[in-house]
Amino acid sequence: MDILKQLCGSLKPLHEAAMEQAAQRISQLTKPPGSLGKLEETAVRMAGITGSLNPDLNKKAVVVMAGDHGVCEEGVSAFPQEVTTQMVQNMLSDGAAVNVFARQAGADVFCVDVGMREELADPRLIARNVRRGTDNIAKGPAMTRREAACAIWTGVETVRELAEKGYRLFATGEMGIGNTTPSSAVLSALTGIPVEANVGRGTGIDDFTLRRKRDVVMEALRVNQPDMTDALGVLSKVGGLEIAGLAGVVLGCAYLRLPVVIDGFISTVAALCATRIAPMSRDFLFASHRSQEKGHAAALESMELTPMLELGMRLGEGTGAVLAFTLLEASIRMMNEMATFESAGISKA
Amino acid sequence: MDILKQLCGSLKPLHEAAMEQAAQRISQLTKPPGSLGKLEETAVRMAGITGSLNPDLNKKAVVVMAGDHGVCEEGVSAFPQEVTTQMVQNMLSDGAAVNVFARQAGADVFCVDVGMREELADPRLIARNVRRGTDNIAKGPAMTRREAACAIWTGVETVRELAEKGYRLFATGEMGIGNTTPSSAVLSALTGIPVEANVGRGTGIDDFTLRRKRDVVMEALRVNQPDMTDALGVLSKVGGLEIAGLAGVVLGCAYLRLPVVIDGFISTVAALCATRIAPMSRDFLFASHRSQEKGHAAALESMELTPMLELGMRLGEGTGAVLAFTLLEASIRMMNEMATFESAGISKA
Repeated sequence: MDILKQLCGSLKPLHEAAMEQAAQRISQLTKPPGSLGKLEETAVRMAGITGSLNPDLNKKAVVVMAGDHGVCEEGVSAFPQEVTTQMVQNMLSDGAAVNVFARQAGADVFCVDVGMREELADPRLIARNVRRGTDNIAKGPAMTRREAACAIWTGVETVRELAEKGYRLFATGEMGIGNTTPSSAVLSALTGIPVEANVGRGTGIDDFTLRRKRDVVMEALRVNQPDMTDALGVLSKVGGLEIAGLAGVVLGCAYLRLPVVIDGFISTVAALCATRIAPMSRDFLFASHRSQEKGHAAALESMELTPMLELGMRLGEGTGAVLAFTLLEASIRMMNEMATFESAGISKA
Repeated sequence: MDILKQLCGSLKPLHEAAMEQAAQRISQLTKPPGSLGKLEETAVRMAGITGSLNPDLNKKAVVVMAGDHGVCEEGVSAFPQEVTTQMVQNMLSDGAAVNVFARQAGADVFCVDVGMREELADPRLIARNVRRGTDNIAKGPAMTRREAACAIWTGVETVRELAEKGYRLFATGEMGIGNTTPSSAVLSALTGIPVEANVGRGTGIDDFTLRRKRDVVMEALRVNQPDMTDALGVLSKVGGLEIAGLAGVVLGCAYLRLPVVIDGFISTVAALCATRIAPMSRDFLFASHRSQEKGHAAALESMELTPMLELGMRLGEGTGAVLAFTLLEASIRMMNEMATFESAGISKA
């Protein structure tokens, strides 16, 4: 936990000079000022993160953290728990939606077992299991504080290792049957947003299960009494291993000054944890899409992030985040490849 | 005009069997039903348009129609009128935003002079000038009914020629200083949406010019008295040559059963004209982004279209449409490349 504190203490703010240079450059391009909206903001922030107006985004990684949830025994999900392992296997075999979109974007998918219940012996899986699934949060804490910190650190280390291999743009993804339940609990615990406003249908539960899920989240908060000023405590009490792992991915990206695109509800709640642990990490995040999952909009708003895609998706895995890679790349291309009013000989407004 | 009527009469509905087959296929993929939201709808409709579950989208075209507007003499735009020609030149030289995004998407940009005031002798420009700019709509009709029909036909012909060269996915774009003014007039004329709710800042006019622009649009409607049930008449009275040309692009795509992605306010108003001329053309349209331009949301709603991108853009040129190409392609890849529950051995909900 000391090493985590050290990392958080050593984060540095966005590179102001590079951002000014980027804004200056964009103001000269052949288009009305501000007319590329969010792509302009993105380009400026990318410069602030990387210190460059033309950062190398050639190698792109989607980090999928996988974990299981003891709370599944409460019957909160539409899918049986073994689907976590089955879907991780599917991802390793390139058959999941995130693989398809990653292939299109020229990105590589990395699955990390940070908290799967079953051991999966597959050399393509990054085996970093902290524990074999969480305990049932409706009955007690999900894990110990030390385990939550280890899971976060796993995320940091994953980014470090991928950065060493040349990856320069990251997306967060997850796989964990039942994981919208702890995500809702974490969001309510950290922000005070009422549970009813925040619990959604996940992979597609019916009305009966939805009411059950709400009760379970409320019970988890009652039993564990998480302290909203202590994000690590919240993660350990009502969170999940993959949620903690993704918080670590965000912190690792902030530390190494690499842009990270966050996916849907679970990823966004994980990012919120990261920004509560180290507020400066927020500046390294890009929101991708607005998911159909009920609490997602509130989770984004809690960090004042606005998404770029409105596709009514609710799949997770990193699918929305990887679809947004092309928009980040478009913003950098815009800044570097467009003609200027001067070079094109165009009259200004 | 007879040939246009003939074309409209010969449009055929979406291919129901292909759509059923697509929906059936998507229901077997390893994801919760419906969890890819708009991408699933898109894939199904793409099948309905092309009759194939795996249509060839290799060659993609952005058709940029360029025209000038007599109404510029009323002082409704932030940019001088010569910028139309300068920006077309910039596009032909690959320096505009649409060129940058098209290059990224693997698409080609085609500029068509359907109504530019100045003649531009450049072999890369598709020279199909119907007339050298419209007349001032605040004082009388923009053009004759025959000219409007010719401009529409230019769009149809452009699609036909590009389709012969193998282009299978289209985006609409435009360049024409002042063209949000006639677009607002056309939108109000066709839908009855009040002018005040519909006139926006275009390339970035100040409050004074915005009031002036509103008055000009109201004057254009008062002087010309367009009949909302006669879209060709509306286009000729208060429209523009590039707006009519883009309506033709939509009709041409519907006729040849090719998907067409529409861009911002002007493109969307043009598409609305097409759907009023031939209602069935609506099924061949995909909305790309929601622009910052005031009337755009209403124009989309008038056709019950919802956009995929929320980037706060207001540039036109086809920039938003070409950014959405990747999402249409993602929907097709999803349908064809994802594993099924059966092939991956995954438990169903």
